[in-house]
Amino acid sequence: MMNYSKVFQGTAFTSKSAKEINILKDYLFCLDDRGMIAKIVSPEDDDYNAMIQEYQDNDHFHRLKEGEYFLPGFIDLHIHAPQWAQSGTALDLPLYDWLHTYTFPLEAKFADRTFARKVYEDLVHTLLKNGTTTGLYFATVHKEASYLLAEICADQGQRGLVGKVVADDPQQNPDYYRDSDAATALAETEEFILDVKELAKKTKQGVYPVVTPRFIPSCTDEALQGLGELAAKYDTHIQSHCSESDWEHGHVKERYHKTDATALNGFGLLQEKSIMAHSVFLEDNDVNLFAETGTAIGHCPLSNAYFANAVLPLAHFHSQGVDIGLGTDISAGAAPSLYDNAKQAVVSSRMLEDGVDTSLSPETRGVDGSRITINEAFYFATAGGGKSLSLPIGLLEENYAWDVQIVDINAGANKLPIFDENEDLYDVFQKMMYLVKPDNIREVWVQGEKVVSQGDGF
Amino acid sequence: MMNYSKVFQGTAFTSKSAKEINILKDYLFCLDDRGMIAKIVSPEDDDYNAMIQEYQDNDHFHRLKEGEYFLPGFIDLHIHAPQWAQSGTALDLPLYDWLHTYTFPLEAKFADRTFARKVYEDLVHTLLKNGTTTGLYFATVHKEASYLLAEICADQGQRGLVGKVVADDPQQNPDYYRDSDAATALAETEEFILDVKELAKKTKQGVYPVVTPRFIPSCTDEALQGLGELAAKYDTHIQSHCSESDWEHGHVKERYHKTDATALNGFGLLQEKSIMAHSVFLEDNDVNLFAETGTAIGHCPLSNAYFANAVLPLAHFHSQGVDIGLGTDISAGAAPSLYDNAKQAVVSSRMLEDGVDTSLSPETRGVDGSRITINEAFYFATAGGGKSLSLPIGLLEENYAWDVQIVDINAGANKLPIFDENEDLYDVFQKMMYLVKPDNIREVWVQGEKVVSQGDGF
Ligand SMILES: [Zn+2]
Ligand SMILES: [Zn+2]
Repeated sequence: MMNYSKVFQGTAFTSKSAKEINILKDYLFCLDDRGMIAKIVSPEDDDYNAMIQEYQDNDHFHRLKEGEYFLPGFIDLHIHAPQWAQSGTALDLPLYDWLHTYTFPLEAKFADRTFARKVYEDLVHTLLKNGTTTGLYFATVHKEASYLLAEICADQGQRGLVGKVVADDPQQNPDYYRDSDAATALAETEEFILDVKELAKKTKQGVYPVVTPRFIPSCTDEALQGLGELAAKYDTHIQSHCSESDWEHGHVKERYHKTDATALNGFGLLQEKSIMAHSVFLEDNDVNLFAETGTAIGHCPLSNAYFANAVLPLAHFHSQGVDIGLGTDISAGAAPSLYDNAKQAVVSSRMLEDGVDTSLSPETRGVDGSRITINEAFYFATAGGGKSLSLPIGLLEENYAWDVQIVDINAGANKLPIFDENEDLYDVFQKMMYLVKPDNIREVWVQGEKVVSQGDGF
Repeated sequence: MMNYSKVFQGTAFTSKSAKEINILKDYLFCLDDRGMIAKIVSPEDDDYNAMIQEYQDNDHFHRLKEGEYFLPGFIDLHIHAPQWAQSGTALDLPLYDWLHTYTFPLEAKFADRTFARKVYEDLVHTLLKNGTTTGLYFATVHKEASYLLAEICADQGQRGLVGKVVADDPQQNPDYYRDSDAATALAETEEFILDVKELAKKTKQGVYPVVTPRFIPSCTDEALQGLGELAAKYDTHIQSHCSESDWEHGHVKERYHKTDATALNGFGLLQEKSIMAHSVFLEDNDVNLFAETGTAIGHCPLSNAYFANAVLPLAHFHSQGVDIGLGTDISAGAAPSLYDNAKQAVVSSRMLEDGVDTSLSPETRGVDGSRITINEAFYFATAGGGKSLSLPIGLLEENYAWDVQIVDINAGANKLPIFDENEDLYDVFQKMMYLVKPDNIREVWVQGEKVVSQGDGF
């Protein structure tokens, strides 16, 4: 009889489109044994009551309590995992000092696997507690510690996409922290890819190797070329940074007399499974190139306020057909939560629309048509991220993975301000997006498995 | 022997200046029976060990545990208390719809004291849990419910400054939600002032009536004039909105052919204990007027992103001698936490400095000299707020009130990313400012009394 391995009953919010929220009130979500949503049943469907009858006494039937809601797990498209150890510090420094006094010395410490384990275990657990069910990570140049991060994602049940960072140019990287040369960087990347693919075989939720040139300025042509070839050979995801700031955009133009995006494409680094962080300064042709190749943008609005010199024209680029998701960019972005970044994405978009400088007239101050809504920010944190990664995640629909956060609006330490028993569900949704803290995230599930529960050792 | 009613031992962070943090490592803070800091003893002082010997077995000796730190309580200079019930919703609407579909109908419901009690008790408790020890509140036009808010602050131990809102112009306010006329508004304001002053006599931490014209556009000249006179007669605080947006700045100029600030000053509404929310569009003369009269700005960076059309030139105005503190502006700002607003103040200031529009050159995109540091944001959330209110709060110094939050960096649900036992204390401070959640705020004290403790009914 029992066709489904687990059945969940409750009210869920998921994107209908980038601008619209689908509210599934008291639906049933039926999983197969791979942790995929095999069937969704609405209270209006004929078999709804029969399904409940059949499953409700089963251990694998989960009914949400009053005040609890399903949201898709969040998908974080840009995390520098080692930098978690410095999250929150040094953001008042200029970029050069931030890199050379804080970031590079810290990343160099990940040669030590004991230290790496301590930081990575805490980070992955923290992200899960914040509702992030999928993470796209830059590790460090160290192959072993990078593999350790993939293992930790596998163990904790998070869907991890992990890159061993390549940074081989002796002119641009400190001697104490870089790949020794391009050939070694490529050989180690290939070993890393094979090791993670092996690990993936026994990881239900998936774990993926990612080809990861830090960014063009830190790599030699030989490394960039070779990495493009490795990605093609093994059909992997690719991540890097693209046109983050005036400096980066200008640096690549000077080196190649073309834009960062065009140069990356020349090395075979733009394709359907490519995700480029930031991409704030893309030019019109670059935007087309992203749309045509299926390259996605990992938008990190908190980080951008410190290091990008401007706001991503998010609404405009999305209207041109570019896939976009959100990232924390730990630690240039000093928050492990995509809730915080979703809110900042709205705020930054409104500051781009209205402008910032009171000495200018309203007509010349901002850029019309730039604002996004909280619905769109939610889309980018979920469905947009899934589309960016070309994975069936980020939506609560049939044939998508059961990656969810269960939000409790009455959590003791952070009860949301709801004073009406019949509060409109769309208002509940907005209050969740603006006011949820980790306390409210009662359980997190990835690929049909519970990976965080507030009760046990939260 | 025992000269002090309570003694606290631990490491504290407090502003040395707007730009510098004073780190008081393992100091003693000795309170008198009014809850004021009577004496601070450093480990280098001669009587340090003798003091510990004398007090340590006493019930009133409190030693912080490993990983706990003192911060001054935060001072929130702008809260629309009734709007807590809609916090997080409707922020994608235009201002007119936000006011007429959501905000005014909600505020009108505070004619019902039962409803008001439910919302206000939850709000004051929430603010305290978020580390806010002093709140400057707009209530509603209803005298009774406004007094109830003052009572709730008094009961819960928060230092509350509360205004009955005046909005009497029939042209500008809906019939279902306004003062019936100027004379009634003034009479009720006077009764409210007297009632709250009576309540203050039995309130240790203080509770204060605040003269509160909603803003010039919603009031008649008669009401504005009368409110200025009432404030002078009773020596009260004054709060309103000033030059928040292009619309408001323009509206007042059209009505009076002078700026909002000049007009407010003409009604006697700018003085040492005046706090004007937003004040984004102040002109040069307005800035001088604020500095000369001692009028402070309640800066609400989250709210401004939605409703102000630009960023407050915070660094510039502060350099001109204007007192500035931070506000949440619940519910135009959808966060009850000044941590969130302190972070946004830094982010917004950097977006003003760098600019937002990628189509402009770096030279013309932003406004040089606009950025503030996290130290300054902390200053505005604490000492700057105290200076704005002309009260001895916001600093951990002798002759200041013992208003503190005890932050635990190892709180189970939100352990901060600190992996080095000897982490530099300034790095700890920055991590707290960027990463603390209500979970980490283990206890809150106001005027020497514990008002929140995570153990009991948090
Ligand atoms: Zn990055
Ligand atoms: Zn306001």
